[in-house]
Amino acid sequence: MKLYGFPASPNTWKVRAAAHQIGVPLELEIVDLTKGAQRKPEYLALNPTGRTPTLVDGDFKLWESSAIMQYLGSKKKTPLWPDDAKARADIARWQSWHLQHWSRGTTILIFENLVKKIMGIGEPDAKALAQGTELFHQDAAMLDAHLGRHPYLVNDTLTLADFTVVAPLFHAEPAKIPLEKYGNIKRWFGAQAALPAWQETAPRR
Amino acid sequence: MKLYGFPASPNTWKVRAAAHQIGVPLELEIVDLTKGAQRKPEYLALNPTGRTPTLVDGDFKLWESSAIMQYLGSKKKTPLWPDDAKARADIARWQSWHLQHWSRGTTILIFENLVKKIMGIGEPDAKALAQGTELFHQDAAMLDAHLGRHPYLVNDTLTLADFTVVAPLFHAEPAKIPLEKYGNIKRWFGAQAALPAWQETAPRR
Repeated sequence: MKLYGFPASPNTWKVRAAAHQIGVPLELEIVDLTKGAQRKPEYLALNPTGRTPTLVDGDFKLWESSAIMQYLGSKKKTPLWPDDAKARADIARWQSWHLQHWSRGTTILIFENLVKKIMGIGEPDAKALAQGTELFHQDAAMLDAHLGRHPYLVNDTLTLADFTVVAPLFHAEPAKIPLEKYGNIKRWFGAQAALPAWQETAPRR
Repeated sequence: MKLYGFPASPNTWKVRAAAHQIGVPLELEIVDLTKGAQRKPEYLALNPTGRTPTLVDGDFKLWESSAIMQYLGSKKKTPLWPDDAKARADIARWQSWHLQHWSRGTTILIFENLVKKIMGIGEPDAKALAQGTELFHQDAAMLDAHLGRHPYLVNDTLTLADFTVVAPLFHAEPAKIPLEKYGNIKRWFGAQAALPAWQETAPRR
């Protein structure tokens, strides 16, 4: 299977980290977001949204990272995506929450504080930063409370839910994501950052 | 199973419509969003995000409508959620796309043009409307092209993907969602609007 993506993007990184943990090999094809490669016709033929990553497995082309992770989890028996309806719905709950809520604040902070600097496209916008910070704290408070009662998001064990929700935090420092007061999130993030799955798929600096 | 929700909200309506189509009975408990019932302690004990809907099945409390629909689909054999890894990942792709992209434009238009009027909380904001309209057209163009090649989103048959993505369009008229030029979306929406599953779960006007 081939994964078309950009290693430094959280969406590509988390898919590669999950594939590593599951033990499914992925051949990486770089789509250089800094050069607009995601808008070239050959990429749009794989993924008409012009976003990354995209998985290609024979004639099946799959985009959206949560869906890709679930598909990889179905390729090989794995505790990350257990064959149990309740556990899978619980994982899908956190992946949905990430897409609809958690990713919004974190994406704004990563864009304003990190992407703009890398791309040389100006200073962070104060109004956007304030909005991103407010969204972040709303969601972080709930997440921190949950992680105060549980070591991981679902069934007290590592699953695809953790790989999805933790991903933006790998850019917390340069993106100035205000994690300071969230001790449970920091503990949970630290446990995952220590995994070879994340370390061996990390973008080269 | 009990569903805590607000019948006029697209998120509650689509879960009830999908449950009807699958043939799984749900007992509805109204959470009156117009009175802030979603922020009362007894509701927050079920769902700490303070959003609707929430499914309660014994001691399993599940929130996020896409996850709830998948769980209902696993309760009874149904073509809406086929027991096939590729089909399920494909459905999850469209549900993810809805959460991250499609819902953003449509939610803004529904809030500005419809919710504000119902709640009596002022006129639509021109800047928000412009942003919502721009987001909507970006996503609608891709969706319309896909539906020009396929009668439904996944495997040319009705699935949970359709129930998820079509839901905001049930408010298209009062929310002034600009569907005019998207003939394929309109045909696909019409086919679903004719289903008893949507009609019999419609909010009372």
